[in-house]
Amino acid sequence: MQSALEKARVLVEALPYIKKFYGKTVVIKYGGHAMLNSELKQAVITDLVLMKFVGINPVVVHGGGPDITGMLKRLGIESQFVGGLRVTDSSTMEVVEMVLGKLNKEIVALINQLGGRGIGLSGKDANLITATKKLGKDQADIGFVGEVAKINPQLLKTVIDEGYIPVISPVGIGPEGETYNINGDTAAGALAAALQADKLIILTDVEGILADPKDKTSLISVIEAADIPSLIEQGIIQGGMIPKVECCVKAIQSGVTTTHILDGRVPHAILLEVFTDQGIGTMVK
Amino acid sequence: MQSALEKARVLVEALPYIKKFYGKTVVIKYGGHAMLNSELKQAVITDLVLMKFVGINPVVVHGGGPDITGMLKRLGIESQFVGGLRVTDSSTMEVVEMVLGKLNKEIVALINQLGGRGIGLSGKDANLITATKKLGKDQADIGFVGEVAKINPQLLKTVIDEGYIPVISPVGIGPEGETYNINGDTAAGALAAALQADKLIILTDVEGILADPKDKTSLISVIEAADIPSLIEQGIIQGGMIPKVECCVKAIQSGVTTTHILDGRVPHAILLEVFTDQGIGTMVK
Amino acid sequence: MQSALEKARVLVEALPYIKKFYGKTVVIKYGGHAMLNSELKQAVITDLVLMKFVGINPVVVHGGGPDITGMLKRLGIESQFVGGLRVTDSSTMEVVEMVLGKLNKEIVALINQLGGRGIGLSGKDANLITATKKLGKDQADIGFVGEVAKINPQLLKTVIDEGYIPVISPVGIGPEGETYNINGDTAAGALAAALQADKLIILTDVEGILADPKDKTSLISVIEAADIPSLIEQGIIQGGMIPKVECCVKAIQSGVTTTHILDGRVPHAILLEVFTDQGIGTMVK
Amino acid sequence: MQSALEKARVLVEALPYIKKFYGKTVVIKYGGHAMLNSELKQAVITDLVLMKFVGINPVVVHGGGPDITGMLKRLGIESQFVGGLRVTDSSTMEVVEMVLGKLNKEIVALINQLGGRGIGLSGKDANLITATKKLGKDQADIGFVGEVAKINPQLLKTVIDEGYIPVISPVGIGPEGETYNINGDTAAGALAAALQADKLIILTDVEGILADPKDKTSLISVIEAADIPSLIEQGIIQGGMIPKVECCVKAIQSGVTTTHILDGRVPHAILLEVFTDQGIGTMVK
Amino acid sequence: MQSALEKARVLVEALPYIKKFYGKTVVIKYGGHAMLNSELKQAVITDLVLMKFVGINPVVVHGGGPDITGMLKRLGIESQFVGGLRVTDSSTMEVVEMVLGKLNKEIVALINQLGGRGIGLSGKDANLITATKKLGKDQADIGFVGEVAKINPQLLKTVIDEGYIPVISPVGIGPEGETYNINGDTAAGALAAALQADKLIILTDVEGILADPKDKTSLISVIEAADIPSLIEQGIIQGGMIPKVECCVKAIQSGVTTTHILDGRVPHAILLEVFTDQGIGTMVK
Amino acid sequence: MQSALEKARVLVEALPYIKKFYGKTVVIKYGGHAMLNSELKQAVITDLVLMKFVGINPVVVHGGGPDITGMLKRLGIESQFVGGLRVTDSSTMEVVEMVLGKLNKEIVALINQLGGRGIGLSGKDANLITATKKLGKDQADIGFVGEVAKINPQLLKTVIDEGYIPVISPVGIGPEGETYNINGDTAAGALAAALQADKLIILTDVEGILADPKDKTSLISVIEAADIPSLIEQGIIQGGMIPKVECCVKAIQSGVTTTHILDGRVPHAILLEVFTDQGIGTMVK
Repeated sequence: MQSALEKARVLVEALPYIKKFYGKTVVIKYGGHAMLNSELKQAVITDLVLMKFVGINPVVVHGGGPDITGMLKRLGIESQFVGGLRVTDSSTMEVVEMVLGKLNKEIVALINQLGGRGIGLSGKDANLITATKKLGKDQADIGFVGEVAKINPQLLKTVIDEGYIPVISPVGIGPEGETYNINGDTAAGALAAALQADKLIILTDVEGILADPKDKTSLISVIEAADIPSLIEQGIIQGGMIPKVECCVKAIQSGVTTTHILDGRVPHAILLEVFTDQGIGTMVK
Repeated sequence: MQSALEKARVLVEALPYIKKFYGKTVVIKYGGHAMLNSELKQAVITDLVLMKFVGINPVVVHGGGPDITGMLKRLGIESQFVGGLRVTDSSTMEVVEMVLGKLNKEIVALINQLGGRGIGLSGKDANLITATKKLGKDQADIGFVGEVAKINPQLLKTVIDEGYIPVISPVGIGPEGETYNINGDTAAGALAAALQADKLIILTDVEGILADPKDKTSLISVIEAADIPSLIEQGIIQGGMIPKVECCVKAIQSGVTTTHILDGRVPHAILLEVFTDQGIGTMVK
Repeated sequence: MQSALEKARVLVEALPYIKKFYGKTVVIKYGGHAMLNSELKQAVITDLVLMKFVGINPVVVHGGGPDITGMLKRLGIESQFVGGLRVTDSSTMEVVEMVLGKLNKEIVALINQLGGRGIGLSGKDANLITATKKLGKDQADIGFVGEVAKINPQLLKTVIDEGYIPVISPVGIGPEGETYNINGDTAAGALAAALQADKLIILTDVEGILADPKDKTSLISVIEAADIPSLIEQGIIQGGMIPKVECCVKAIQSGVTTTHILDGRVPHAILLEVFTDQGIGTMVK
Repeated sequence: MQSALEKARVLVEALPYIKKFYGKTVVIKYGGHAMLNSELKQAVITDLVLMKFVGINPVVVHGGGPDITGMLKRLGIESQFVGGLRVTDSSTMEVVEMVLGKLNKEIVALINQLGGRGIGLSGKDANLITATKKLGKDQADIGFVGEVAKINPQLLKTVIDEGYIPVISPVGIGPEGETYNINGDTAAGALAAALQADKLIILTDVEGILADPKDKTSLISVIEAADIPSLIEQGIIQGGMIPKVECCVKAIQSGVTTTHILDGRVPHAILLEVFTDQGIGTMVK
Repeated sequence: MQSALEKARVLVEALPYIKKFYGKTVVIKYGGHAMLNSELKQAVITDLVLMKFVGINPVVVHGGGPDITGMLKRLGIESQFVGGLRVTDSSTMEVVEMVLGKLNKEIVALINQLGGRGIGLSGKDANLITATKKLGKDQADIGFVGEVAKINPQLLKTVIDEGYIPVISPVGIGPEGETYNINGDTAAGALAAALQADKLIILTDVEGILADPKDKTSLISVIEAADIPSLIEQGIIQGGMIPKVECCVKAIQSGVTTTHILDGRVPHAILLEVFTDQGIGTMVK
Repeated sequence: MQSALEKARVLVEALPYIKKFYGKTVVIKYGGHAMLNSELKQAVITDLVLMKFVGINPVVVHGGGPDITGMLKRLGIESQFVGGLRVTDSSTMEVVEMVLGKLNKEIVALINQLGGRGIGLSGKDANLITATKKLGKDQADIGFVGEVAKINPQLLKTVIDEGYIPVISPVGIGPEGETYNINGDTAAGALAAALQADKLIILTDVEGILADPKDKTSLISVIEAADIPSLIEQGIIQGGMIPKVECCVKAIQSGVTTTHILDGRVPHAILLEVFTDQGIGTMVK
C-alpha cells in the first residue's frame, strides 16, 4: 500500500505539466486496442476528463475499425477492390457512418458518466470537415473516400470554451452534400492544425517508432520531423506507421507544437505522456 | 407568372408573424412522409433555415421509422413481443441508435447545404435527455424503451444562441449509461417544455384532428387542451393520434404557448403555419 | 385568391436574399413622391421594419422638399438668388431644420407604429455629420449650404446594434456650431461610405436611368460606375439625375457594394429590390 | 485675482458631492430665462458637461415658450380658448413640435461644442413617452394636450451608458400615432421617476418657494413633500408654482431622492446646487 | 522507484476530488510550524499553486508568531499586561503590522516562484477587514486588538476571478482609521464565511482533535459542529484548541461546507486533505 | 468669504483639464516632506481621490526615507559603505521592506478614509517589478540594490479598471526570489512607461528646476527633454535633482506625454498641476 507522502509526490510532480499545458488544446486520435478493451477504454476516457478538469482542452477523433467490418459482414456487403484498394461504395459508406455514429455516442456517454461533459460530432455538423474525393493509385475510383478540404473550427471553439469535450467521427461532407470517409489520423492532424493545438496524440497498438522493428526495446523517444524522410527511406519506419508519421509531420509543419505516437495498450498512456516525465511512445517534433 | 405586387404582399403579410415569433423557440417533431419524400424533405429544411434567418429558433427532433425496420430486417433481427408490444432488446437498440444517427446527420447536411448551420445531437450529448426504463402493460419488460427523466437544455441554449439549428435523435441515457429509445413526440414535447418554447409542431401524415374521422373536411382548427379528454372519450381522437395529442397537452401544461399537429404531406406546412394566416392542421392550446 | 403554395414560394424565394444581406447595412435616401403619398409611405416604412426583423440594418436619410417650400411661403420668407442659385440664409436654414425635424419624427412614429423601433437623429446629434460651407458657381456665397466634412458614425453603430432603425435629417454642424443644409443624396452616400454599407438605395420619382430619356421601357438595369462619365457626356444621364448618380459612384468608390436608383412610386420598391429577382430601377456597381 | 490655494479649496469642497452623486442620474427641466440669455445658456450647458465628466448622468428636458409663441404669431395661427384654456389644435401642435425640435438640436450642438456628447430625442423616439389625451376643466376638449401614459426608458439607458447626454423634447405619442404636447415639468418628473433618478432639478425664473411671496429673502431652503399640501392651502405656494411643486412631490413619491426648484437666472445654478453647500433654491424631499 | 501505473493511479484517484471542488473557494489559515520550516513552506505553497491550477480557489490568511516576538525583543518593546492579557499598544501594533507585511510578501514571492500568481493584501486594502476594538476580561483595555466588524470581499472576488491567489495579513481597519490586530483563525473564518467558501482549513501543530489528549492515535476524524460544546465541557477539547474549533463552528453556521484542523507538520497536508481519501486531521462539519 | 460665482468659476475652469485627462493614467512618486506633514499628507491623498472620481487613474509609488533610517537606528543596524555608497545588506533590506510595507498600508488606509478605494502592492505582488542586482561605482557590491528588469503591469490594469487606486512600494523581486530595494523615482518612471501613462509627477522638497539655484524665483516652468543634458553639463541641474530629471527624460523617451517635478511642500500641488493653469514646478516634456 502506498503512503500518503508518495501520493503527494506524484501529484506534485504533475504540477509543472499542468502549468505547461494550461489552456492548451490536445487532439487525440483514439483507436485500436484502446477502443476494444473495456478497461483501457475506461482509462482513456478518465484521462480525457482529468485533462479537462485541470485546464487542458482535449478533442477526440475516433476510429471504428472492427465494428465496421463486423457490420458489413452481418449485412452481407462485400467490398469491391480497384487496383488492390477497397472501394467505399455508397452502401459501405452508409454502414461506416452508422457504426461511427454509434461508437461516437458511446464515447460521449462514457465521458459523461465519468463526470465530464462530452458532445459527439461528425464532420457534417456545422460543416466541420468539408472533403473532396480522393482517388486511388493510377487515379482509380475508390468511391466515397475523401481528403480534408477545409476545417471549419468555429463550432469546436464554441463548445470547447463552454467546457465540453468534443468527440468527432472522421466523416466529411462533399461539395454536393455527399458523405466521405476520412482517415482518422488525417482528420485528427487536420483538426490539430486548424485548432493550433499544442499536442497531437495518436494512439496505436505498437510501442512507437522502433529503431529496430524487431526489437521492442529500441524505441525512439524523440525525433525531429525533418529526420522522418530518411527513416522512411531506410525502411526503419514502414507499413502502416508511414501515414501516421506523415500526419505528425504535417501537423508540426502547420504549427502544432509536438505530436506523439503512443502505445494505446498501456493503461493511461495519455495521462502518463501529458503529466509525467515517464517516456512513453515516440514524440515527433 | 406572379406580379411584383403580389410578391410584395406575401412578404408584407409575413411581417406580423415574424415580429410575433422573433427570438422565440419552436420545437419541430419531424417524421413520417415528410422525411421520406425528397421534395418534402427539401421543403421542411428550407422552412427551418428561413425561420432561423428571420430570428426564430427552430429545434428539430426526428424519427426514423421505416429505415429502422428496414435495417432490422436486413440484419435478420426479429422482434420479440411481450404483452403484444415489441421489445427493444440490446441488438435492436443498437440498430435504432445507428439508423437515427445516420438520419440525424443527413438532416444536418441538408440544413448546411441550404445555407443554415445545423448541428446533430442525441440525448446522450452533454446528457441532454436522461431516461429511465419504461414498462409495458402489466409491468411487462419491453427492453430499452425509456421515459424522459430530465432534460438538460444548457448545451441546446448555447448552440441556439451561437446561431446553430440543433437536430436531435430521440435517444436517452439511463442512470447506468444504458441507451434508451424514446418516443420522438414525447422527446419533442419534453424539449419544448424544458426550453419554454413558444410552439411545438408535430408533423404527421394526417390532416390534423378530424371531428369525423371519415370526413377529411371536418378538420378541427383550434382546440383547448382542456377539451381533449372528452374528445378521446367520445372516440373522436383515437389510435395513434392519442399519444400525439397527449404530448401537446403536456407541453401546454408545462408552459409552451401553442402546439400544432400539422400535415407533413403539405409542402412548406411549417412555413405556412408560422408565417401566414392559412389554416393548416390542428392547434392545441 | 392566392393559394398557400404560392405564398410559400414567395417566402422561399426570399431566403437567398435574406441570407445574402444578413447583418448588412442598407442606407436608404427617402424622398420624393414616396414621402407624400400616404399609402406609399406606409409601404416604405413596412419595408424598413421587415428588413430589420430579418436581420438587415436599414438607415434612413430623408428629404423634406415641398413641406419646406410650403412653410417658407407661409412665413413669407423669400429666397434670394446668387448666380442663379437659391441662397439659404439663416432664417431659411431655421425653417429647413424645423421642417426636417418634424418630418423626421413623423417617420420615426410610423416605424414604431408598424412594430419597429425608430430613432430620429440629425447630423448635430453626437456630431454625426460635421460640415463646411459650400460655395456656389464662381465662389458665390449661397449661405448655409454645406458639404460633408466628416461622418462620426459611432452613435449610429450603437443604436443599430441595439436594434433601432435610425432616421436622419441631412443637417450638418459647422466648426463654429453653425447649421448647414446638406443635400440628402450626398448625406446618404457619405453615411453609406462611413458605415461601409452593403447597399445605398436612392428613392426617386423616375424609373431609373433610361437609355433613351423619352422611352420609359429603355431602363438600364445595371451599370458599372466606370461607365457613368461617358453616359453623362453623351447626355443620356442628365439634369437632376447627374448628382444622384455621382453620389452612387462616390459611394461605390468608398467601398459600398451596390447602389440603386429606384422608382419610389412603385409600392414596396425597396422590398422588391432587396428580396426578389424582380428588376426594379438601375443598379450602379 | 484668486490664489492657488483658494482654487484648490473649491475643488476639494466639490469632492464629497462628486462622490455622493457618482453614477447617479439627474434630470434637469431646462426652461425660462436660462434658455433665452446666451450667457446663462452657456453656463447651463457647461454645468451639464462638467457633471457628465465627473461621473454624473444628466438628462435634459427642455421647454420652448417664447419661440413657440413667436412662430405661431408669424404664421398667423390664432389660438382658440375653451373654458379659458388655450386649445392645441393640429396646426398649433405642428408648430410646437417644429420649434421644440429646433431648440432641441440647438442645445445638443452647444453640448457638443463644449466637449460633451449630446443626443436630441423627442418622446416619439423609440416610443420614449407614450401619451393619452388630457381634458381641460369640465372635460373640455383642449386638443392635442397629453398626459404621460408610459415612459419607455430603454433607449435612454443605452445612450446614457454609452456616454451621451440625452436632451428631450416633451412631445408624446398617442395610441393612434397622434402627437401630444406634454408639459415639460411633468415630462421631466415622469422621466426622473422612470429612470429612478437621484435628483430632479426644475429651473425657474424665481428664487424658489418663498415663505412670504413678497419677501425675496424668505426663501424656504428645504421642505418635506408631506408639508406641501398645507402650504398650498395657506396660499404660500400659489399660481404657476403649484404644478411645479406637484411634479416634485410626485417624483419624490416615485422614488426620486430629492427634487429642486432652482433660480435659473443665477449663472451655474445647477453646478452650485450639485457641487457646493451653497443654498440655492428650494429642495423638496 | 515508482512505476508508471502507480503514478497513473494516484492521478486518477485525485479526479473525483478535482471534480468535487472545481470552482470552489478554500480558505487556508497558514501558521505554526509550517511557516517556519522551509521544506514545509515549499510544500504548502506548492499545494496552493496546484489547487489553483486544477480549478480550486485558495485564499490564504497567515500568522506571524515568532517573528513578531523576535522583532519586539530586538526593538526592546516590552509588553504590558492587563488582567493577565498582553496589551497591544501602538508601538507593538506597528511592529505586528510591519512583520506581517514582510511575511506576507515572502509568501507571495514563493507562490510566484512556484508558478502561481500571488497577491499580498492586508485587511486595510479596499477596507477588506473592518474592525472594532475588542476588550479583554472584565472589559479591560488590551489596546489595538480588534474583532472583525465586516468583510468587504469585492476586491478578493475580483483578484480570484482574474487568477490570483490572495494572501492576507490579519490586520483590520477601525472606524477612525486605526489599525487592529486580528486573530488569524478568526480572520480566516470570517473570510471563509464572507466568500461562502467550501472549505476552511486551519493548519496547526497538532494531529487534530484527540479523544484522549495523551493518546496521539485517538484522533477524531469527523465531528459535527453540534457536538463541539459537549466536548469542550468534557475537557476533551481544551486550551488553544478551543478558539480554533469555535472558529470552525462559526464558519459552519455561516454556510461554509466543511472545516478542517490539519497537522501542518505533515508535508502536503492540504493536498492530502483535498485530493485523497487519506484521513488527515479533524473535520468539523 | 468666497462668493458662489467664484466657486462656480473655479469648477468651470477645471473642466478643460478634466476632459483632457479623462481616462488617462497619472503616476505619482510620493515622498519627501509631503509624506511627513499630516496636513500635506491629507492634501495629497485628497487630490488622488478627486482625480479618480473625475475619471483620471492615479498610480502612487511611495518612498520611505526617514522612517527607514529611524528603524535601522532603533534596531542598531549599522550601514557598511563600499566605495562611499551605503550597502543594503540582507538585514537592512528586511527593515526597508517592513517599513515600506507599513507606510504603504497607511497611505491605503487614508485613501479609503477619504472615500477612495486604495490597494497596497509591492513589486513582489504578481511579479509586478522584477529586478536585477545593481552595482555601485567600480562594480562595487552594494548589496540588495536593484534595477528594474521588467514591469508586469497586468495586475495594475485589472485593479485600475475595477476602480482602485494602486499604491506601490518600490521593492523588486530578483530571479532567485531575492528582494531588491529600488529607487522610488526610478520605479515610478518605469511604471509610467509600462502603463503608457499620460503624466509622471515627482513630488520633491524644492520648487522645481531653478535657472539659478540660489534664486527661488528663477523657476524653469517648462523644459524639453532634449535640453536636459546641457543643463546638467552647465551645472544648472545638479546633485539629487540629476537622477530625478533623468527619470523624467527616460519616461518621456518611453512614451509618457509629460513629466513634472513639483514642490510637495505646496498643499494640493498635484491638483493645481492637473486641474488649473497655475504654474507649479517644472514640466519636462
